[in-house]
Parts: sequence; structure tokens; C-alpha cells
Amino acid sequence: MSSRGRRAGAGDTRADILEVAREEFATKGYAGTSLRGVARGAGVDPALLHHYFDGKAGLFAEVVGVPADLDERVAAAVVGPVEEAGERIVRAFLGIWDHPEGRTRFRALVGAATSQEQAAVVLRDFVSRTVLNRLTTAFGEDRGGVSEVAVALAGSQLVGMAMLRYVLEVPALAGADPEEIVALLAPTIQSLLVD
Amino acid sequence: MSSRGRRAGAGDTRADILEVAREEFATKGYAGTSLRGVARGAGVDPALLHHYFDGKAGLFAEVVGVPADLDERVAAAVVGPVEEAGERIVRAFLGIWDHPEGRTRFRALVGAATSQEQAAVVLRDFVSRTVLNRLTTAFGEDRGGVSEVAVALAGSQLVGMAMLRYVLEVPALAGADPEEIVALLAPTIQSLLVD
Repeated sequence: MSSRGRRAGAGDTRADILEVAREEFATKGYAGTSLRGVARGAGVDPALLHHYFDGKAGLFAEVVGVPADLDERVAAAVVGPVEEAGERIVRAFLGIWDHPEGRTRFRALVGAATSQEQAAVVLRDFVSRTVLNRLTTAFGEDRGGVSEVAVALAGSQLVGMAMLRYVLEVPALAGADPEEIVALLAPTIQSLLVD
Repeated sequence: MSSRGRRAGAGDTRADILEVAREEFATKGYAGTSLRGVARGAGVDPALLHHYFDGKAGLFAEVVGVPADLDERVAAAVVGPVEEAGERIVRAFLGIWDHPEGRTRFRALVGAATSQEQAAVVLRDFVSRTVLNRLTTAFGEDRGGVSEVAVALAGSQLVGMAMLRYVLEVPALAGADPEEIVALLAPTIQSLLVD
């Protein structure tokens, strides 16, 4: 009911909270994580979490920590020769998630989306407004390009690869060389977005 | 701590338990669902759940309820003209999940895999031993076909589509006509498995 203690230094406290929250979301899922539990783990008053992060959804968005980065990377990946768009996009995606911390974050994201309706909405809005919007602007019907369904299916191929590689850890994909994934997946993304 | 009551008829009781469990897994995820809670919801003694389902993992497998069906459908889908394999496989996949109950089951599956290490292992083993094994036998290296990574990526494209259509419910995919999905996705599955 009460905090176990306080620490000096707002910057450190914030980082401590995020570290605890990242661990809690990853192991307990969105629904199983409580602000109270995170506050206890970080040794701070729960009110501080509301102050810093505007509640659990805000803390989650901050913990996941990919928004700006992901959006920038996708924005960068759509620029360049159109013949290599698929390859750039697969590389960008692997660059974001293909390391231990990224894997943990991806699991937390998916876990949240499946266990908590609010998180699914947050994530859908985020994916739609950033990734799919960037791809639609670059390859969509307004540019005489492909349908929204094709753009969404291109995005879904990256999500599916990540599901088998990071979440289910199906051996063939979990252990695959990133370059092999790029070589096989780039053409299918390319054909959906460009052809 | 104790059950709230019993019902007569083992068949009905079993069905009641499964109905409650399906709802609990779908809304609370694997980790958030307890045998005690399911027993309470079904109005039976928790011991009965252990007796019928051999614990939570067994109850989950029973609730998910796709194994035999999924395996049969995949087995049927790989048979036939090789030029239409991608199309048959996408159609089979949509036939399994593309209805309200299927969607709920898919969410429960993914939620379990992300929130509980044991469920991820169960699901990985199941996917590897049924779907990926069928595809590898039909299209893999032993038949002079494609690599295990290519087979796994083909499977992952179906999983990714389902993630955006059933879990995140990204509008473009959630509302797409199944035939449009078949038309766009079949060629990429085909190219991974056959070309």
C-alpha cells in the first residue's frame, strides 16, 4: 500500500522504473503488470508513475520504446531505389528487433496485444499510423501503387517472421542467418509492395 | 477454496469446463487463467479438472482444440497440383481461423505463447510437428525442394496475416475479403515453397 523508499535523482528514478516495468511487462504481460507492483520493484511511490507516465498505457508505450526509432527507420527504408525496397525494409525490421533486448520487447508487445484489449488498440493505432502509413504513402494507391490490403500483408509478413523467430522460436527461423531471411523474404515483400 | 456445486452428467460437465476455460484463456491469457478460477466458473471441484485434463497445459491444448483438425487440413492442402499449392494452403488456413470462434482461439494461442514459456514450447512443438513437418515433407529438401527456413517463412506469412487480421485487427486486413487475401498471399507462399 505504501512505497518502500525513495531514491534521489529524478533521472535515475525514471530509468529504474522503466527497467522494472520492462521486466514486468515481458514476464507477466500487460494485464498481469500493475503500476503498484512496478513502483514497489523500483522502490518509489505509485503516484510517481502516474506523474511520469500518465498511467499504465503510457508506461507501456515508453517501455516498448520503439515508436520514434521504428518510425524513423521505416521512413528511411522506403527511400531509395524502388527495386530494392523489399530488401531495405526487411533489413530495417531485423535491425530493430534482431537482438536479445529487441526480442524481449517484441514478446512484450505481442503479449500485451493479446492479453489486453486496450493494448491491442494502442498497438494497432501505432502500427497503422507509423509503419503502414509510411508504406502506404510510398507504395499505395495514391501513388498509383498497391492496395491497402497488399501493404498490410507486406507488414504482416514481417510480423509473422518475428513471431516464429522471437516468440515461438521455431528452430529453423530462430537459428537462421539474418542474410538468409533477407534473401527469402525481401522478394515477397517486394512483390506485394511494388509489383 | 471449495467448489460452488456439482452438475450431473460427465459429458455436460466437461463441455461446461471447456466453455469457461476457452473464455478465461481468451480474456486473461494463459498465465492469468487458473484451474481454480475455471473450476469456480464451471461450478465444479478443481480436482475434476486435473482428472479430465491433466493440468493447465492439457486443458489449454483441449481448449485450443485445433490440433487434429489443423493437421488434417494441412495434410489435405499439400495434396494436389503443385502450381496451386500456395492457394490451397492459404484457403485451408483461412478455413480454420476465419470465423468468430477461430479468431478467439487464435488470440488465446498467441496470448499463451507470449505470456507463458511452457505454452510457447507446447505451441512450437505442435507447429513444428504438424504444420511445418507436413510442408517440409511435401516441399522440403528431401524432395529436392526448398530449405527449412523457406518452409518456416511460408508458415510465418500465415501467422503474420492472422496477427494483423485477428489480433491487432488492422482495418485493411480485418475487413478484407478472404478472396483478396488468397489472391495476394497465395503467390508469396507459392514462391517460398515451390520456386
